[in-house]
Amino acid sequence: MAVYEATASAPVNIACIKYWGKRDTKLILPTNSSLSVTLDQDHLRSTTTSRADPSFTEDRLWLNGKEEEIKEGGRTATCIAEMKRLRKQEVEDKQPNEPKVKNHPHHAPQILRSDHLGLQLSTHHVHIASFNNFPTAAGLASSASGFAALVSSLAQLYKLPVSPSTLSLIARQGSGSACRSLFGGFVAWEQGTLPDGSDSLAVEVAPQSHWPDMHALICVVSDDKKGTSSTSGMQRTVETSPLLQHRIKHVVPQRMADISAAIRARDFDKFAEITMRDSNQFHAVALDTEPPIFYMNDVSRAIIALIVEYNRVSVEKGLGRKAAYTYDAGPNAVIYTLKENVKEIVELILKYFPQREGAFKDVFGLLGGVDVAKVEGNVPEGFNEAVAKKFDVGAVKGLIHTKVGDGPRALGAEESLLGNDGLPKTLAA
Amino acid sequence: MAVYEATASAPVNIACIKYWGKRDTKLILPTNSSLSVTLDQDHLRSTTTSRADPSFTEDRLWLNGKEEEIKEGGRTATCIAEMKRLRKQEVEDKQPNEPKVKNHPHHAPQILRSDHLGLQLSTHHVHIASFNNFPTAAGLASSASGFAALVSSLAQLYKLPVSPSTLSLIARQGSGSACRSLFGGFVAWEQGTLPDGSDSLAVEVAPQSHWPDMHALICVVSDDKKGTSSTSGMQRTVETSPLLQHRIKHVVPQRMADISAAIRARDFDKFAEITMRDSNQFHAVALDTEPPIFYMNDVSRAIIALIVEYNRVSVEKGLGRKAAYTYDAGPNAVIYTLKENVKEIVELILKYFPQREGAFKDVFGLLGGVDVAKVEGNVPEGFNEAVAKKFDVGAVKGLIHTKVGDGPRALGAEESLLGNDGLPKTLAA
Repeated sequence: MAVYEATASAPVNIACIKYWGKRDTKLILPTNSSLSVTLDQDHLRSTTTSRADPSFTEDRLWLNGKEEEIKEGGRTATCIAEMKRLRKQEVEDKQPNEPKVKNHPHHAPQILRSDHLGLQLSTHHVHIASFNNFPTAAGLASSASGFAALVSSLAQLYKLPVSPSTLSLIARQGSGSACRSLFGGFVAWEQGTLPDGSDSLAVEVAPQSHWPDMHALICVVSDDKKGTSSTSGMQRTVETSPLLQHRIKHVVPQRMADISAAIRARDFDKFAEITMRDSNQFHAVALDTEPPIFYMNDVSRAIIALIVEYNRVSVEKGLGRKAAYTYDAGPNAVIYTLKENVKEIVELILKYFPQREGAFKDVFGLLGGVDVAKVEGNVPEGFNEAVAKKFDVGAVKGLIHTKVGDGPRALGAEESLLGNDGLPKTLAA
Repeated sequence: MAVYEATASAPVNIACIKYWGKRDTKLILPTNSSLSVTLDQDHLRSTTTSRADPSFTEDRLWLNGKEEEIKEGGRTATCIAEMKRLRKQEVEDKQPNEPKVKNHPHHAPQILRSDHLGLQLSTHHVHIASFNNFPTAAGLASSASGFAALVSSLAQLYKLPVSPSTLSLIARQGSGSACRSLFGGFVAWEQGTLPDGSDSLAVEVAPQSHWPDMHALICVVSDDKKGTSSTSGMQRTVETSPLLQHRIKHVVPQRMADISAAIRARDFDKFAEITMRDSNQFHAVALDTEPPIFYMNDVSRAIIALIVEYNRVSVEKGLGRKAAYTYDAGPNAVIYTLKENVKEIVELILKYFPQREGAFKDVFGLLGGVDVAKVEGNVPEGFNEAVAKKFDVGAVKGLIHTKVGDGPRALGAEESLLGNDGLPKTLAA
């Protein structure tokens, strides 16, 4: 008997223009448009297998081998229901099986049965297993790549003839920023204006191939305290920050236009300027919230000071800004820079943030095989070393080097996360 | 021969509605009105002696015993020149000496000479010695109390028949926030609209006696790095923060009205809400600056978390907010609270921030004679202790307990900081 199953992987994305605030919390419609860079799945990804089977008695979901409840009316349930609805609307209703079979009596019964089951996929329950290849402790949000992989695997399973933008409408209802992980390269989430959210979707600003030298260095920062969740945090900002409305109406629209133009022109200096300003403004409106929300800590601040000084030196040499920091709802820094500067920036970070052995998987071979714990670090000529103090080992507990990447990938059956029994192959995280 | 000299002390003030941004940097005209509480000079003060003498060959100034250059066209020079101008305009030009003496030939020549010299005070050079009773290391801005004491001592020396508001116009040109130290109690600095700044002055919202139970606990926080000076920082915010303009036009005016009403009604809950929101918004626009400005650090954030939780418990009990944090251009917290709550708050702070011996001068006798290093600290019932971690000794390196106070005081000759030779009595800081 046929197994109806598909496996997909989806990338992480890190916003340059930040999403912070919903105008509709159920449909997840944002108060402003946002724009991100999709990171390479070769390094950071969520992989998801979805299977539909008439023997399944309910929809079930496993994250990193651990079963998660699919709450009725919750975000996961919504995404699954929407994908089933699309399956019915775009595939099953357009290719009704019964009449066709009646008109073609030469179809063998077993084929008919199999086709029949396949065409009824939307009526079957699904088992879904998802795995993130980056540890939760890295502090990277997995909801964007996770919901993008979920929607992508179901789209593949259901053979949906729809665009990534259409899928982004559904991923958005799982986690807002997930909609941006449906594309590779440089991606805008257009806020839209319709009450039903049907125009609040992701579009490609430029593909990965447009600017493949865009690299990213993630500095994983330790934090003592659990920050405010972004879901509750952003709504508190919407309700209490007087500055947010100004940001939404008068700042973001221009920035969206300007950074899109900078990306199209491959103008890194401008890209960096806008990215850093928007990260700062997002954290500013978080701070303008009652009670205030802080995501950055003293280590985050020190990394900002290093990048500001690094750019000052570079601008003074007439080279423009060479790096852009950005911070999401946590203390981790993501530093965008062009390929040619990554080594210099890694050395700069190592000068102030010594690492434990193995804390950097040097996938691009920057350090020539030397372990990161043995690298002293260095600052560029003219750099004022006093802008930050040297921290203890572990203040930045790891570095991840990656670059702009492609959109969701369809994987082969050999990558399936589900066993013959319909349960996850491994239960370990 | 008569000595023309006067000594005055002036208080520190800590703003609830923050001053951040100038529309005129020379006249020091602010982009928005602000409001502060004047703190008690019994605890924190600047004391200044000004002397005029025909034998002096130039204007000279000593701060904490160390001579400071009076730069031509600088802020100190401007204040001294303005005070001399007022002396001439308000006193000397209105009481011309020569004609009077001629009409009264029974005046003895030496008296005539003395009076004559006195009436020409504005033409003499001055020696000025100023002393702050709080260490620079405390991180408290001394410019406000310093310029208020300077202007007050000169006003006394020159016997100026002018109001504190008029003097505030001059102190403002020394350091913007100094204008608010010309009054005790609760003080507004009205931004004004005239280009010459003649309506940008301080006014009393309510005197000290209106709400004497308003206490303040200053948590002196260690910091590794020197922050951006407020003078250069605020201008960078004016030039680069898109959010500042919204704050100026649409947020501050209402807050000024609301907090003034709260003070008049002695509504601590409302006073606290506005004070905390405005502190947060000031730091938000600092963060929205390019490059961003940070004044608060992880210790500051932890104190905010403690006060937020302290208020949550209190609000839940139906008591409203009982404490308000506020942060100026540095990591120190100033916590406003009513007298009855100070002990509880000191114990709360001590629970998370153990102190060195002698790090708290317990002027109100809260700890019953026990040294602060020996006090364990405590949290109120229902307080979630997990909102912050316990810090090492020295993270908060000292506590200062004070309260709302009066305006500048005229001191007796025995308090003079200048010796017979016209030089500071002590050269030690």
